[in-house]
Amino acid sequence: MDTVRLPGGAAVALATPLDERGELDHAGLERLVRRVLSGGVSMVCPTGSTGEGARLGPRRRAEVAAAVRGLVPAEVPVVAGLPATDTESVLTELAGLAATGVTAALVSPPSYFPMPGDEVLRFYEELAAATPLPIVLYNIPQFTKVTIPPPVVGDLAAHPAIAGIKDSGRDMEYLLAVLEATSGGTGSPGSTGSPGSTGSPVSPTNPAADFTVLTGTDTLLMAGLLSGADGTIAASANLVPELGAEICRSVASGDLDRALRAQRRLTDVVLACRRGTPPAGWKSALEIAGICDRRLAGRAAPLSGQDHAALADHLARLGVVKERR
Amino acid sequence: MDTVRLPGGAAVALATPLDERGELDHAGLERLVRRVLSGGVSMVCPTGSTGEGARLGPRRRAEVAAAVRGLVPAEVPVVAGLPATDTESVLTELAGLAATGVTAALVSPPSYFPMPGDEVLRFYEELAAATPLPIVLYNIPQFTKVTIPPPVVGDLAAHPAIAGIKDSGRDMEYLLAVLEATSGGTGSPGSTGSPGSTGSPVSPTNPAADFTVLTGTDTLLMAGLLSGADGTIAASANLVPELGAEICRSVASGDLDRALRAQRRLTDVVLACRRGTPPAGWKSALEIAGICDRRLAGRAAPLSGQDHAALADHLARLGVVKERR
Amino acid sequence: MDTVRLPGGAAVALATPLDERGELDHAGLERLVRRVLSGGVSMVCPTGSTGEGARLGPRRRAEVAAAVRGLVPAEVPVVAGLPATDTESVLTELAGLAATGVTAALVSPPSYFPMPGDEVLRFYEELAAATPLPIVLYNIPQFTKVTIPPPVVGDLAAHPAIAGIKDSGRDMEYLLAVLEATSGGTGSPGSTGSPGSTGSPVSPTNPAADFTVLTGTDTLLMAGLLSGADGTIAASANLVPELGAEICRSVASGDLDRALRAQRRLTDVVLACRRGTPPAGWKSALEIAGICDRRLAGRAAPLSGQDHAALADHLARLGVVKERR
Amino acid sequence: MDTVRLPGGAAVALATPLDERGELDHAGLERLVRRVLSGGVSMVCPTGSTGEGARLGPRRRAEVAAAVRGLVPAEVPVVAGLPATDTESVLTELAGLAATGVTAALVSPPSYFPMPGDEVLRFYEELAAATPLPIVLYNIPQFTKVTIPPPVVGDLAAHPAIAGIKDSGRDMEYLLAVLEATSGGTGSPGSTGSPGSTGSPVSPTNPAADFTVLTGTDTLLMAGLLSGADGTIAASANLVPELGAEICRSVASGDLDRALRAQRRLTDVVLACRRGTPPAGWKSALEIAGICDRRLAGRAAPLSGQDHAALADHLARLGVVKERR
Repeated sequence: MDTVRLPGGAAVALATPLDERGELDHAGLERLVRRVLSGGVSMVCPTGSTGEGARLGPRRRAEVAAAVRGLVPAEVPVVAGLPATDTESVLTELAGLAATGVTAALVSPPSYFPMPGDEVLRFYEELAAATPLPIVLYNIPQFTKVTIPPPVVGDLAAHPAIAGIKDSGRDMEYLLAVLEATSGGTGSPGSTGSPGSTGSPVSPTNPAADFTVLTGTDTLLMAGLLSGADGTIAASANLVPELGAEICRSVASGDLDRALRAQRRLTDVVLACRRGTPPAGWKSALEIAGICDRRLAGRAAPLSGQDHAALADHLARLGVVKERR
Repeated sequence: MDTVRLPGGAAVALATPLDERGELDHAGLERLVRRVLSGGVSMVCPTGSTGEGARLGPRRRAEVAAAVRGLVPAEVPVVAGLPATDTESVLTELAGLAATGVTAALVSPPSYFPMPGDEVLRFYEELAAATPLPIVLYNIPQFTKVTIPPPVVGDLAAHPAIAGIKDSGRDMEYLLAVLEATSGGTGSPGSTGSPGSTGSPVSPTNPAADFTVLTGTDTLLMAGLLSGADGTIAASANLVPELGAEICRSVASGDLDRALRAQRRLTDVVLACRRGTPPAGWKSALEIAGICDRRLAGRAAPLSGQDHAALADHLARLGVVKERR
Repeated sequence: MDTVRLPGGAAVALATPLDERGELDHAGLERLVRRVLSGGVSMVCPTGSTGEGARLGPRRRAEVAAAVRGLVPAEVPVVAGLPATDTESVLTELAGLAATGVTAALVSPPSYFPMPGDEVLRFYEELAAATPLPIVLYNIPQFTKVTIPPPVVGDLAAHPAIAGIKDSGRDMEYLLAVLEATSGGTGSPGSTGSPGSTGSPVSPTNPAADFTVLTGTDTLLMAGLLSGADGTIAASANLVPELGAEICRSVASGDLDRALRAQRRLTDVVLACRRGTPPAGWKSALEIAGICDRRLAGRAAPLSGQDHAALADHLARLGVVKERR
Repeated sequence: MDTVRLPGGAAVALATPLDERGELDHAGLERLVRRVLSGGVSMVCPTGSTGEGARLGPRRRAEVAAAVRGLVPAEVPVVAGLPATDTESVLTELAGLAATGVTAALVSPPSYFPMPGDEVLRFYEELAAATPLPIVLYNIPQFTKVTIPPPVVGDLAAHPAIAGIKDSGRDMEYLLAVLEATSGGTGSPGSTGSPGSTGSPVSPTNPAADFTVLTGTDTLLMAGLLSGADGTIAASANLVPELGAEICRSVASGDLDRALRAQRRLTDVVLACRRGTPPAGWKSALEIAGICDRRLAGRAAPLSGQDHAALADHLARLGVVKERR
């Protein structure tokens, strides 16, 4: 398999619009995809945690991935989430996803047994040796109990089938260690174009490897970029795709004042939507914005009427949605 | 579906012997099943945590369940472990398991997203409404992050398709609360045959419902029985099935001295085997006892040579295996 | 210092009645002490966790200890709680406590830095070498983050200045390991009077050492006794001292039916009072029972009016207090 | 009490040199203070976590604070750590510290009972109303189990006796929320000198209040400064005070390339010294650097000979100390 270079910038961790039977709401999905593309997202990433991949199951994950691939222009990568269970099931699902034409799969470690670092390494190495699709590592210990140790990320980054990592761990020190482990030591992330530098004021990419480091924590986007991360896959991009994109652009051009203003606004939106069982807040925000129903997959509970109304008020005050409830 | 009444007593959480390709070792499995049956186990429970169900994947889980069912006499129940992911996948797998002739499925909650109690309730209710096979609840928060709240267990116990619970949480207070929630208030677990009672010195069963409460924590077996639990599904029964059986018998007959001696010996064995990533210690013990290789499923690491040798020494000192390394 | 043998049975973790200035309410304390003595407590233990020792500070801890000693007959031991910070401060406070005439001090490990087991051992050894007062170890990891490892308890149990342990960790397996580590291997806790035994059907004491093992977890009292624990120091004894005493007596006489009925009632009371920041529920219960005000020490919040009223209803339904709000 | 404005920049969380009796090593302290002052630290902060304040006890904390104040020039603030237990003891100790002439006290919340946010607020408000010395809040949940909620920090920041916060929580999102809660909404932390600004390219101070926000996490220093933090109180400044100072200066002058190089070197040193029970690694580094013995306070274990030697090699390879073991 050829090495894929995934873009930095602000990608969307796409929510999954569902109809009253719990099946994919195609019309809602189309509205949502149109919105995030017009907002400037760098990639579209369905069926991750925000996309409720773990609740959907393999059949509907494949259905969503295929539908999204059909709605997104070919030049925009689609990276489909796949919450791993056992190696055999993951390889079967990767083959199915490859057939849909998606660009890569975002694979989190199995979440049942604890996994020491060396087992994590062997798990991803076995996948990498057999996958028909590039793999993005997904570090999300709050859901899997497993942390992919930075040295393991460093080892895996060298494999041509491993294209990058999304880190949703909220531990900035972990992100720094991953950047260190994958940088090759020659990069200058966060450069501001001091005398003698080659021109581009701040390079948000990691030049040392075809390995893309993305944060999944919207509130740490600016701090992550300044420390050398390439970009983000963000839940917030479902609602306000422009904000993440602006932060990435502003850091890249060295306009840190502008970046900080956008980050503060983004943080306000994120904290407003942090309600209920994930991703209930984002789904309610999408209903409020007129994109799709707020229902969740499986038996998970959407926001109650009261919480939903409070969120609508909050988002209206923030100016994110029009005052019209 | 008719209500099934599962027996109390000491069942085995069966390990899965594997060959060098990681596939089921049929000869090893036969040796293991013969041993535990001769040791007096009340049920055989493959593909749970000790059986590495989560690492095996659905195809091999079904293969192991069918093989075990074929090896175990019809009058001994077989309860197959099924680590749930999404509802659709669970129902598909339950249909396949029903076809193998197993008695019930031991279903743990999905382990990716956190699950509030009301969502746990709806999850199992949906399964119970559609399952072709009786379900045993599996509370194992150390692996799933999800605790099935005792009131939810109480609600689910009334459903004819829900046959019992295995609690592996090591929280004795939780077990007490489950017994309280499922007892109907009229039982007298731990009765010692005071004047006026009906004769059986200590009734280890829960008379209020066709709902069987089993502890998965070998070291708390006697304490659990005395508090009203019906029995256990225990990893230790792979190696020393006689000990759990003796504890259950002795508590039932009121011989607490004898029960306590057996419990102390069992605790010694359990603490000796608590090594490595689960169930590495038990698998090594089975290799030491001449039953099967110690290799684990997936990419999990068995005990190192040094740890394995130390365990062999320890088990020899305890008199569990013969001194012959 | 001579070795002290503390009694088993049901001791009280005494609450600290406070007046509106946050100082000791002497009249309330007298009412409380009279009540628990008439309920048959085996020891009185002020200024532990239920007594809010950590919030009171050393001056008021000494004041409370002296007052309690003055109210309790000489033949009933008083064990005063002392949440350790640094060795020098602990030794100073132990000297002051010794002067009040209390029997022993219940000393929890320092709670700021994590403490490996060998450091815990050295910490208590240094205290034991210099203390003028017998020490009871206090294992309460939910507050100190420190677990006293069972082998360390075993080592410390041999020291004449270390009189016992109170384990409030809710981990039954830990309690079993402590009993194993301190039993000397010859005891028969939980004996039911098999032929040849000396008469008392169940001996709740640990005969192998002058070391008393007490559980601090009311809901596990019966299970703990049956596993060989000597008794309890319980918060519930402030409100219902008779229940713990009955459980201890019934287990000792082999009447497990009676013990189980008392344990179930005790568990109901404990779960009812588990509200608010500890020990807010117990303090409210004491106000409801007419003993003292529900205010807490320091800046901790008592139960709100609504919670307090709900608890009053609950306790009235349980028949613990008269219906008179 | 007048409001104090503490400086940003890189302060040192001073280690406490001890002699063989566990008492303060005055000569070692003098060497250490001389070294950190020549390295450009902005403040000297003894008896915090690195200074082992919780192990020293109040008598030696006061002794160390007085000795440090005597060694440090009047224009450099001294902020003494005080791990709170109960309010009465804290106020007594604050009075003693005020008499030594230190600038402020760094007060962590009590670490025994869990503390909800409103109790944390009342705790610090009561101290603030009565303290003779400015107080710096100390958020260090890994040791206290208590997080000071950002809105509580916002409320307390308005109090003239509360001069700032040190956040050692390693949760970058928390630090961002604290900056948001204390910024007054008008600041431009991380400003890069856009047209119309007053000249200094990046202002590392928070202009909205006399409230200083400091990170205690050396590895996040650059990220924290870029997000608006004023500086750090860092353990690493005992060994390499120049590095933190350079990061602060470089961020302030907008030379992010230089800041990043220093941050990477600092991170290497911090990860090398993260050994043993805190602060064993830093104490060994000071012994290796010829400043003082590596022994710890209380009964805490210093690095073993083997670990100590490995650290010496590591630091020599990093060029932090000369190769001379």
